Amino acid sequence: MATLPLPPGSTLGILGGGQLGRMLALAAARLGFDVAVLERDADSPAGRVAAHTIVGAYDDPAALEQLAAVAQVVTFEFENVPADSVLKLQSLGVEVAPGPEALAVAQDRIAEKQFLNASGAPTVAFSAADTAEEAVAATAAMGAPVLMKTRREGYDGKGQRWVEHAADAAAAFTELGGVPVILEAPADFVRELSIIAARGRDGATAVYPLAENHHEGGILRRSLAPAQVSEDLAFQAEKIAARILKGLNYVGVVGIELFELKDGTLLVNEIAPRVHNTGHWTQDGCAADQFEQHIRAVAGWPLAPTVPHARVEMLNLLGDEAEAWSKLAHEPDTRIHLYGKRDPKPGRKMGHVNKLKAL
Amino acid sequence: MATLPLPPGSTLGILGGGQLGRMLALAAARLGFDVAVLERDADSPAGRVAAHTIVGAYDDPAALEQLAAVAQVVTFEFENVPADSVLKLQSLGVEVAPGPEALAVAQDRIAEKQFLNASGAPTVAFSAADTAEEAVAATAAMGAPVLMKTRREGYDGKGQRWVEHAADAAAAFTELGGVPVILEAPADFVRELSIIAARGRDGATAVYPLAENHHEGGILRRSLAPAQVSEDLAFQAEKIAARILKGLNYVGVVGIELFELKDGTLLVNEIAPRVHNTGHWTQDGCAADQFEQHIRAVAGWPLAPTVPHARVEMLNLLGDEAEAWSKLAHEPDTRIHLYGKRDPKPGRKMGHVNKLKAL
Repeated sequence: MATLPLPPGSTLGILGGGQLGRMLALAAARLGFDVAVLERDADSPAGRVAAHTIVGAYDDPAALEQLAAVAQVVTFEFENVPADSVLKLQSLGVEVAPGPEALAVAQDRIAEKQFLNASGAPTVAFSAADTAEEAVAATAAMGAPVLMKTRREGYDGKGQRWVEHAADAAAAFTELGGVPVILEAPADFVRELSIIAARGRDGATAVYPLAENHHEGGILRRSLAPAQVSEDLAFQAEKIAARILKGLNYVGVVGIELFELKDGTLLVNEIAPRVHNTGHWTQDGCAADQFEQHIRAVAGWPLAPTVPHARVEMLNLLGDEAEAWSKLAHEPDTRIHLYGKRDPKPGRKMGHVNKLKAL
Repeated sequence: MATLPLPPGSTLGILGGGQLGRMLALAAARLGFDVAVLERDADSPAGRVAAHTIVGAYDDPAALEQLAAVAQVVTFEFENVPADSVLKLQSLGVEVAPGPEALAVAQDRIAEKQFLNASGAPTVAFSAADTAEEAVAATAAMGAPVLMKTRREGYDGKGQRWVEHAADAAAAFTELGGVPVILEAPADFVRELSIIAARGRDGATAVYPLAENHHEGGILRRSLAPAQVSEDLAFQAEKIAARILKGLNYVGVVGIELFELKDGTLLVNEIAPRVHNTGHWTQDGCAADQFEQHIRAVAGWPLAPTVPHARVEMLNLLGDEAEAWSKLAHEPDTRIHLYGKRDPKPGRKMGHVNKLKAL
């Protein structure tokens, strides 16, 4: 069994070798941990900065056993970790955080919305549909337009379709693969915000200031933080975060995407049980960033303060945009973060910059 | 030959696998570089966060060839890199920075003082002695007490002796191994300061604010930065740094240790052609720290700004002091940096903390 708080010199496991795993690994190293990354690719962004890479699928029992043999605490960079993998690691004496409740909720958009509403965190109206017929009937009942999303998987705008007329729901259902879906009423929002929140193993919580987010084609383009918000709005967001963290008995950092409505109220769009793209600004805006905060929480350390010392505009570098690194390097107030990905496919997150401004 | 500025995705080589190499490797990773560490130990603090570890001595031709096969630019974490190793890497088309001039000066305390005085950077009075007889005569000529140091090697107060009477100089010479020495007049200083300076491949320079340093038993205990100094003192220090950087045709970060005398003038104690323990405060006090600055310089990128956003008290964690990590983790304004060293020998640098204060 893991000794908690986890002492420096211990090995921390990360499922996933992408940019979030990489930045978690760098934060863990600063605190004196060794890192073991479990990842299909022998050469991954996170693996290249970790002491160990274990090559395998996230549900490969042999790979999970190898991970459990070196790592006392395991976390992950993405929400679609198979539940059986978590159980397997736990059965081998490994502490896994965030826990299975958070994963179950985050992996199923219906369970997520039901949990949120039950916790007093408001969302848009929604319906579930498992067949094309159910999708048509539910769209008619809710009234088009609705946003149809697969119940499971999907990210960066993938796995979703707008349905403009109830009659189109069957075709959209087929286009999404004929799998169970959620139908969401449109949110008439004026702004997209997010809050990065953390909960320690001792139940203490901390929230960073809100970020204002701008998406293009379903992909995050830029975040501004701390966002210009009223005290009331900040208070609403913190209350929502507190309910989610407690309701999930959460350990770690969570990203909570919010819609700000015209009337000044907030709806929760979705929750990501991990460090979050809209929290990258904390790397250069706060003394302890979301990556250190997550490592502290899962390792059973006390949480760090979340007070900002700069205002930050975070811009994602997608596809070939990272090729502008030399121009960006000449901007004095631009901090550059690149992920070491080999292949700049269009829309792929290759890095980000944090542009610093006075608070 | 290396393409400069070095594009992200390239591999940067580091000679040395200790804490300075580790923090350089973490900074290089943030900018999207892969890192290859050349180090005698297969398991080293830097190697554990690097994509490649090449196991070998710093003068092992086969290891240097392996390094040259993967790395386009090579730097180092310590000044005692053999000159032949630099020549070997250069002959294989590798860019090595800082360059051979800086190493030659930093490896020989007589050459260092001669260079400094020739550059208009004042030092204490000194003499060279290659034999016990010369040491006695030189001590008598300078007038005891003098500080006898080996001309080469030695760090953290190792390889030096105070000589209180000319007659004791022969014994001290023998105790230091009978190797060539330097005799230094005592500096009647009121304070130890240091300045971390950088020079890019384009000749541009940048200096961080001065740090005030406190040693115990020859080992740095704490630094306070930005130090409380007059404008005149800061100007003197910057002028000294500029002369040193230009005189060595320097590329990278240099640590310059200074004595502040009663009359408000500065003497240079020594220069370290690398990132420096008294610059660790920049990790939490500045937007871009000395490690990123060094990587930028050696990679041919433009230098980053050096404006502080916090005042920092940096404390080294020596030997078993790092075992207080749990207590330190509870201090909200204490940022923890641990090196992943396995064996906490007395006096060994295991980590440091940066305690943040308002500017």
